[in-house]
Amino acid sequence: MSTKKGGGGAGGGGKKKKEVKKETKLGMAYKKDDNFGEWYSEVVVNSEMIEYYDISGCYILRPWAMEIWELLKEFFDAEIKKLKLKPYYFPLFVTENVLQKEKDHIEGFAPEVAWVTKSGKSDLEAPIAIRPTSETVMYPYFSKWIRSHRDLPLKCNQWCNVVRWEFSNPTPFIRSREFLWQEGHTVFATKEEADEEVLQILELYRRIYEEFLAVPVSKGRKSEMEKFAGGLYTTSVEAFIPNTGRGIQGATSHCLGQNFAKMFDITFENEKGERSMVWQNSWAYTTRSIGVMIMTHGDDKGLVLPPKVAPIQVIVIPVPFKDADTTAIKGACESAVYSLNQAGIRADLDARENYSPGWKYSQWEMKGVPLRIEIGPKDLANKQVRIVRRDNGTKVDIPSADLVEQVRMLLDGIQANLLETAKQKRDACIAPINTWDEFTAALNEKKLILAPWCDEEEVEKDVKARTKGDLGAAKTLCTPFDQPDLPSGTVCFASGKPATTWSFWGRSY
Amino acid sequence: MSTKKGGGGAGGGGKKKKEVKKETKLGMAYKKDDNFGEWYSEVVVNSEMIEYYDISGCYILRPWAMEIWELLKEFFDAEIKKLKLKPYYFPLFVTENVLQKEKDHIEGFAPEVAWVTKSGKSDLEAPIAIRPTSETVMYPYFSKWIRSHRDLPLKCNQWCNVVRWEFSNPTPFIRSREFLWQEGHTVFATKEEADEEVLQILELYRRIYEEFLAVPVSKGRKSEMEKFAGGLYTTSVEAFIPNTGRGIQGATSHCLGQNFAKMFDITFENEKGERSMVWQNSWAYTTRSIGVMIMTHGDDKGLVLPPKVAPIQVIVIPVPFKDADTTAIKGACESAVYSLNQAGIRADLDARENYSPGWKYSQWEMKGVPLRIEIGPKDLANKQVRIVRRDNGTKVDIPSADLVEQVRMLLDGIQANLLETAKQKRDACIAPINTWDEFTAALNEKKLILAPWCDEEEVEKDVKARTKGDLGAAKTLCTPFDQPDLPSGTVCFASGKPATTWSFWGRSY
Repeated sequence: MSTKKGGGGAGGGGKKKKEVKKETKLGMAYKKDDNFGEWYSEVVVNSEMIEYYDISGCYILRPWAMEIWELLKEFFDAEIKKLKLKPYYFPLFVTENVLQKEKDHIEGFAPEVAWVTKSGKSDLEAPIAIRPTSETVMYPYFSKWIRSHRDLPLKCNQWCNVVRWEFSNPTPFIRSREFLWQEGHTVFATKEEADEEVLQILELYRRIYEEFLAVPVSKGRKSEMEKFAGGLYTTSVEAFIPNTGRGIQGATSHCLGQNFAKMFDITFENEKGERSMVWQNSWAYTTRSIGVMIMTHGDDKGLVLPPKVAPIQVIVIPVPFKDADTTAIKGACESAVYSLNQAGIRADLDARENYSPGWKYSQWEMKGVPLRIEIGPKDLANKQVRIVRRDNGTKVDIPSADLVEQVRMLLDGIQANLLETAKQKRDACIAPINTWDEFTAALNEKKLILAPWCDEEEVEKDVKARTKGDLGAAKTLCTPFDQPDLPSGTVCFASGKPATTWSFWGRSY
Repeated sequence: MSTKKGGGGAGGGGKKKKEVKKETKLGMAYKKDDNFGEWYSEVVVNSEMIEYYDISGCYILRPWAMEIWELLKEFFDAEIKKLKLKPYYFPLFVTENVLQKEKDHIEGFAPEVAWVTKSGKSDLEAPIAIRPTSETVMYPYFSKWIRSHRDLPLKCNQWCNVVRWEFSNPTPFIRSREFLWQEGHTVFATKEEADEEVLQILELYRRIYEEFLAVPVSKGRKSEMEKFAGGLYTTSVEAFIPNTGRGIQGATSHCLGQNFAKMFDITFENEKGERSMVWQNSWAYTTRSIGVMIMTHGDDKGLVLPPKVAPIQVIVIPVPFKDADTTAIKGACESAVYSLNQAGIRADLDARENYSPGWKYSQWEMKGVPLRIEIGPKDLANKQVRIVRRDNGTKVDIPSADLVEQVRMLLDGIQANLLETAKQKRDACIAPINTWDEFTAALNEKKLILAPWCDEEEVEKDVKARTKGDLGAAKTLCTPFDQPDLPSGTVCFASGKPATTWSFWGRSY
């Protein structure tokens, strides 16, 4: 089948190699610092998060990934329901003329749109597009539903799949032709309400990354070039992958202004009885978030999962010895799992008899489980368990009586440590620069560049043109809300004009 | 746009008519017993469950439908997780050669498959199908993942959208080109395990219909003609719509036997070290379930929602009088909502000032909310509230002090009453028959026919041929597990051969 390709992925793993590795399931062939692309492809497959699919750019999400997605969804969905978001489901398909109604918007997506042209053996009367995002799917109906100020705000969210048939370097989670996301679409009477919600949602995205995935992100505003096609302004949370020196957009919260409202005629009668045009937002985060988390924390033994999103937080492994009382050991393991589960901790027992304890240690390290508990005859005799941390490998023996309390503290500690460590690594990459020479030097060193900028679109175009090459051009990542001082007289690193902001620049995913 | 069509739906509502009705939002133009098709199209739109979309056969699911779907999902997902089902997400797309691997299976779906042939302006190298169901998407990977008996059982479930580009009479929820469902796919070492699970899942489907949607269903087995294409046998829960005299398949739980295992080479090494072939099941229920519920309980005032799935179970409406203390009335309403919410009851306040109480009564009746609470000055003075039931219109005044307890009892009563009433109506349609003449008479009377049958495929084909006409041919709905006595010597109503079962026959959706 011509659409079948090899591993693809961040550098391409090669399917055959992976199959062999999966058989043995022990250890990783690639090191994160030596060959990041291969390492990533290997870790997503060996941890059983991803299976490569026979259509390039499409991936199978296995339970080890989907359970994380469900945990994130549970958090986010509850939060947006507090904000009175309502669940909707709009069709997967959109007609050509509706899709093309907003010109800037469709320009941003057109090359990636997948078209259905046949059903069974018959040609459709006209091709139908698969949604790359749902602005044009939804807004004709918003126009119909909204008549009066009493119909506002309208707050719509859907969890669904979308398709963007990209041709550049597909990578599991990070860049795939189909992915899962939520998309929020909201409509307000005033810009103030829209502006406020943009930031409320952005803060939820920050929490997904920092509190759940333990990935440090910068909140900021996108440049005119990088904003959402057809929108007014875009805010985002931006992460950074030190190994590749690339920024990565974590999630976006757009204020669409009144542009779509004009195109789709979304107006309302205000309290004075006059027709007014609405203000709109749209915002989304995707399964990409899982990929960013893997890239941030994973190591040469495999995944490292933050406890808050780990499907299994504690794996309990019996360590029988030849003369030891295996029944008592198994009993102690079961009792530990039971106590932890009762306390709301996701613990599981690995009682498989056909694998050695050592093999199991490696497998659960590969899968990134935050804590491993080992119970052998000596532990049994001492009424203790051995606990091993995945993040830093430290081992402690703790009294069985203190199990729940100690595990809880350790999980909290790991969660905090992962974020702190990632933050230190990210911060070490931040390079504040002032001149073009400093900029190109920092770019070569794969830094997250913080540069004084005149904030002009033409200048960003120019920087892109001047830096293009095999690794991709540099561009703005965001203008962070958290701004360093900008002494008066500071000039733009690229144009020499007066600088108006500090912005993050670099290559990106 | 050529794909844009009018209302479509169960008899076609005509879009313009609906738009006008939506404006007024008061009352229904059609009666359930007079024009069921128009009534259904009207009720799904006016209750704000559905918006017709500009691609025929695709519908927008609005919050009033999606919140029901979420409640059903919450129940079912928790139940299957107890059975150790794991969440997966497989791609929307499947290649032509994989889709066609199991011949009987693809024959059943081929005319309805939607094909993607282009991305942007480029033709794909080969067309790619959108999943109509995921057997062929998943099973090549099951073959890869399953090596040993220790990898079994494999239990996979996904919540997703599927596409079947049908051309016959699209109807919201009931028959749409895209719909939402869960699909479970499980793999076992033995037929016994597969057989057991088929019935465990079927029982969960019965509970969705009877306990949640208050729709009576019959559990049974499908005939050879009606079973899932490529499977071994199919069980289902079957509902019946008295108004149209049509059976409707509620959900199916299939044992696939070893047929797909052969085609996709899914084998394992058993405990004796021999290669064995696996046994497989697949099972699904869809958003159709919501449509069956609407058809069963709705009346000439609109929807009637069973309390267990009603997004709002109790709507509280202030009834101010000119001289009355409106602040105190509003306070009493808020207090009622608060107490009910605290008790875990989904109650809401309709405090809109631009609508009269009477208009609100009609609207919430249209939306099918099980209980309405009215609080006016007299109620306030008497420390009581008036409660009105949606299912039978009865009104009671109850002391405010007993509010939570009484509401709980009433909701339970409505839930039970809806099922019981629907059961009586359904049972009144069951026509046990013995001869061909009785069969055709009962078919004309739109009965749910229970007939002694020889269970031969050729005979069902013959019955279909002999009954075809404008309303569609008669066919088997299921052979119910709950079998009446079959005295020896009973003969098949259609072939005169010895009967082996009682089966339900009729026209169906």
